[in-house]
Amino acid sequence: MRICFIGDSFVNGTGDPECLGWTGRICVAAQKQGYDVTYYNLGVRRETSADIKARWLQEVSCRLSPADDGRVVFSFGTNDTTIETDKTRIDFVESTENTRQILQVARQKFPVLMVGAPPIIDAEQNARTARLLEQFEQICLATNIHYLDIFAPLQKSQTWLQEVADYDGAHPRAAGYQEIANLVQNWSGWQSWLT
Amino acid sequence: MRICFIGDSFVNGTGDPECLGWTGRICVAAQKQGYDVTYYNLGVRRETSADIKARWLQEVSCRLSPADDGRVVFSFGTNDTTIETDKTRIDFVESTENTRQILQVARQKFPVLMVGAPPIIDAEQNARTARLLEQFEQICLATNIHYLDIFAPLQKSQTWLQEVADYDGAHPRAAGYQEIANLVQNWSGWQSWLT
Repeated sequence: MRICFIGDSFVNGTGDPECLGWTGRICVAAQKQGYDVTYYNLGVRRETSADIKARWLQEVSCRLSPADDGRVVFSFGTNDTTIETDKTRIDFVESTENTRQILQVARQKFPVLMVGAPPIIDAEQNARTARLLEQFEQICLATNIHYLDIFAPLQKSQTWLQEVADYDGAHPRAAGYQEIANLVQNWSGWQSWLT
Repeated sequence: MRICFIGDSFVNGTGDPECLGWTGRICVAAQKQGYDVTYYNLGVRRETSADIKARWLQEVSCRLSPADDGRVVFSFGTNDTTIETDKTRIDFVESTENTRQILQVARQKFPVLMVGAPPIIDAEQNARTARLLEQFEQICLATNIHYLDIFAPLQKSQTWLQEVADYDGAHPRAAGYQEIANLVQNWSGWQSWLT
């Protein structure tokens, strides 16, 4: 199985001294369980849904040829809701439209999963992100894609909140990424790929 | 520092149960030394110099903006010399021309390093690869890019040869990738980035 993880710095694993992030951690665990996984990390720092819409298909296409049992996991959203020059980097409606387009195209080509975005240290941005994630969840429901909410459980995770606060206000270190990995590994969407 | 590693399955770390490969291992070590490294792994299985020429600049450009202290490490070659339908996948002269073009463009935009390709289990292909790598080394010399030979030391490494033989004839497991990581970490080219 070859899996492309597409998204932002949280997919990249920015801040993780072990250079795995949650994506690498779940692939290591899958390999330990005996699955043959090729791991493609396509997380890019600062990227919004617009950036991802522009690049995902080209980057995935050269990594997953039709013979490969290729699969795709998306995770993004936080950078859309960052304020720059008095407005969010991406307008709310545009974010939802970008995401709908990405997912509609993706699900026609590959098995797809979507993992939501985590909370950061900024309460106002978190409120905007949570509102956007509700839309993402609805889009996934409508396009028949498994969606995992990580926002709510991470808001209750002292490990997550403390590491993010101690590091750069957005990214955790190893233990915080392990928290996301645990959520994904306990999720029926991910488990349905490992059977 | 943000580093893009561009290449083939050996850059991807295919076969490594720890999902790090040599690229992840050297970035973990750099972080342990206190360097702030963002790790972008852009290794793609089966890719030749022609495939890499076609995609590297676009993939790197969206990851390394001018403000980012972005750097690029290339490593490829083995797939060029694979025989398919009675000839090598890429003609020898075309391989060298692709590589020259990639490196000439890259060095105008980023600090660049090049790591050679490893031996696999096939002696005839190894002979072709070694001949191609001599050209790569000459191109690096001419374009003033640090080049690291890993082929010769890995041919003498029992760890490498044994893991490759026991796995799929081309890729090692964790210990083999650690061998490459050790070679790169002891190399003045890599060390010059960590000062």
